[in-house]
Amino acid sequence: MTTAEFPLNDLAGAAGRMDLLLNAANAALLVSHDLRRDVEVTLLLLGPPDPPRAIRILGERIERWGPDIRGNAALIRRALEHGSRLERETSPGIFASKRSLEEVLAGVPEPLVELLEDGHDIRQASLPPDVAFLLSDSVDLTSEEREIISRKNPLACRVGPRSLHTDHVIAIIHNELDRRYASVT
Amino acid sequence: MTTAEFPLNDLAGAAGRMDLLLNAANAALLVSHDLRRDVEVTLLLLGPPDPPRAIRILGERIERWGPDIRGNAALIRRALEHGSRLERETSPGIFASKRSLEEVLAGVPEPLVELLEDGHDIRQASLPPDVAFLLSDSVDLTSEEREIISRKNPLACRVGPRSLHTDHVIAIIHNELDRRYASVT
Repeated sequence: MTTAEFPLNDLAGAAGRMDLLLNAANAALLVSHDLRRDVEVTLLLLGPPDPPRAIRILGERIERWGPDIRGNAALIRRALEHGSRLERETSPGIFASKRSLEEVLAGVPEPLVELLEDGHDIRQASLPPDVAFLLSDSVDLTSEEREIISRKNPLACRVGPRSLHTDHVIAIIHNELDRRYASVT
Repeated sequence: MTTAEFPLNDLAGAAGRMDLLLNAANAALLVSHDLRRDVEVTLLLLGPPDPPRAIRILGERIERWGPDIRGNAALIRRALEHGSRLERETSPGIFASKRSLEEVLAGVPEPLVELLEDGHDIRQASLPPDVAFLLSDSVDLTSEEREIISRKNPLACRVGPRSLHTDHVIAIIHNELDRRYASVT
């Protein structure tokens, strides 16, 4: 949904699978008792009534993001109150704007890795420490969306032999990057 | 919490991090648009007012488990209504009983893998297709719990260099097993 009025008590139903987005953001941003400060997430919301909406979350600036998706949903609500094309920081580290897939991708530096079931094995892929990943929800992309993405020359990767939920794919991607670049904490 | 009266609208707060258990169960049981039928999950609830409670979930028998943790929480509520030591199937594939960590572990076949930050790298570990994993929540185990677990001679493993949330660790473990044993779907 692209209204701040989505119901906090039915994130997976009447709110239009807002739980899926929030779980994905948590997988991208959280480690045990801490945040990944070097991560940037952009959630692209394309549901009714006022699509598109882009919500950009900067790990290095967020203050109140936590494991509870219902608490985080309140921050998303606040972001959705801002429907202008000009990006605004609606809470610390959370930036809202009315931007399309094409506009969001224009601001994403390459290389861009797209997660696809028939892509290259991510364990064998060349992944620099600064790399962007594009994941979709449970619905297939439209041919128009596919065309927009293809202009970014994405590298197609897969995490394994099974098709998984977005948040679980993100956890696996982070694990691969952590193994290559994170020092032991 | 170990009462069926836990609040569905505050799973991460007043319900005592019920969200953490439900997210972990989802990571164990779900793939995209499908269930992992070869998985068995046991949730061990040790909070007030009537601990311990064990809820065993059989992937091959569950019918209504889905991505929405609030919907799944209703099934957990039903399981918590059954406080007897004798296990009962409270919903299809969901079995409830009043059992302790020691009693639950007695029913878990070896090998048992315990996830620990200083364990062996799971990518190098010997993992048969039938293997049990023990994960805790965000609170450290007590010395009594450690003693009970040590009697099962667990193999200590870690998924990577960072300490992660339980559900994300489960996603990474499944990915490792999928790579070894799942045929491409």
